[in-house]
Amino acid sequence: MGQIGKCIVLLSGGLDSSTVAYWAKKQGYNLRGLSYKYGQIGAKEVEHANLIAQKLGISLKIIDLSSLKEIFAGVTSLCDENIEMTPTFSQPIIVPFRNAIFLSVAVAYAVSIDATKVLYGAQSSDEPFYPDCRREFYKTFEKAAKLGTSKDITIEAPFSDIAKSEIIKLGTELGVPFQLTWSCYLNGSKHCGKCESCTNRKKAFKEAGIYDPTGYDE
Amino acid sequence: MGQIGKCIVLLSGGLDSSTVAYWAKKQGYNLRGLSYKYGQIGAKEVEHANLIAQKLGISLKIIDLSSLKEIFAGVTSLCDENIEMTPTFSQPIIVPFRNAIFLSVAVAYAVSIDATKVLYGAQSSDEPFYPDCRREFYKTFEKAAKLGTSKDITIEAPFSDIAKSEIIKLGTELGVPFQLTWSCYLNGSKHCGKCESCTNRKKAFKEAGIYDPTGYDE
Repeated sequence: MGQIGKCIVLLSGGLDSSTVAYWAKKQGYNLRGLSYKYGQIGAKEVEHANLIAQKLGISLKIIDLSSLKEIFAGVTSLCDENIEMTPTFSQPIIVPFRNAIFLSVAVAYAVSIDATKVLYGAQSSDEPFYPDCRREFYKTFEKAAKLGTSKDITIEAPFSDIAKSEIIKLGTELGVPFQLTWSCYLNGSKHCGKCESCTNRKKAFKEAGIYDPTGYDE
Repeated sequence: MGQIGKCIVLLSGGLDSSTVAYWAKKQGYNLRGLSYKYGQIGAKEVEHANLIAQKLGISLKIIDLSSLKEIFAGVTSLCDENIEMTPTFSQPIIVPFRNAIFLSVAVAYAVSIDATKVLYGAQSSDEPFYPDCRREFYKTFEKAAKLGTSKDITIEAPFSDIAKSEIIKLGTELGVPFQLTWSCYLNGSKHCGKCESCTNRKKAFKEAGIYDPTGYDE
């Protein structure tokens, strides 16, 4: 398949965005990875994004927005060790408007390298909880991106209609090295196995009926 | 006038945003200033934002997004000394999608402190050149903000229909200390007097028929 044009993929190092990247590579996109530090406790996800980018043979730009911790500390357990990390969804897991910040910078990056597409890994299992993972949000944001840049930039979340377990099935077909991905909100040597993200990861592998190669602490 | 609610004002240290801040204070808003380092050459504008915030008696949060220079260098003369700084508008003056990045972070900050309004200093003299200063853009972005946060956050540019010279007239009535504001794209001890932004500043004071207190290099 030929190259379709420059395309940026938001690569967090988790399994959803890694599968988006493998899927996009297969579509023939001329892919560039983009990853962020934003004051998250689980900052080692960025190293995992790098491992995935290397495996896939694409570049990865890492933008350090760690100063955002000044905003997110006190608000979200993902950026503040003093806020309880819950095993199921709770309000403080939300990093407010995070995906909009990520998409804004991605659109700026797209303009800077003449890319016309930005991909991110929003999926339907997160939609009920995370408003910035919903199609209505990112399609409206896409409209703002076209208006704010005067460029025909599209924003797509190719898996926004499918569940995490389906992404795992698809990723398995695509050869995504799930053992190299990182989902945990903490920054331990292994996945904690207890935070919301680890819980969702475990559950999705189980639902998919696919062997979970993740080493969990428990 | 009573306080209307928490409100964030993007304060660049220039005269448009400073006038927005003075105007908003007069409306009775419970104001918080927000300023960014984004790899801009003229980074001393942030110090001027601080001077204005002090004069106005409001807090100023400065968020350091300097890592964005990795994206903006090579693209815009505002962040790259190797790109010619032109006295009138030219494409490389545009920092792509900058205002969307600024607004995204502002919305995140708004959510974090329960503010419901974000103000920025877009004005009509810039509209033809800067797509992210247009009403159509920021109203669409506002829609994305509501969808992406599930909060009723509004984004307003109260001067988006008036020219820079009119802002100067209004700012004079409001007592904005224009001598403390900074417009220059460079970082000299005085305004250079030659870049697009200095040119627009000079012209606007002249059109307004108001004494320009700025010390220009030439």
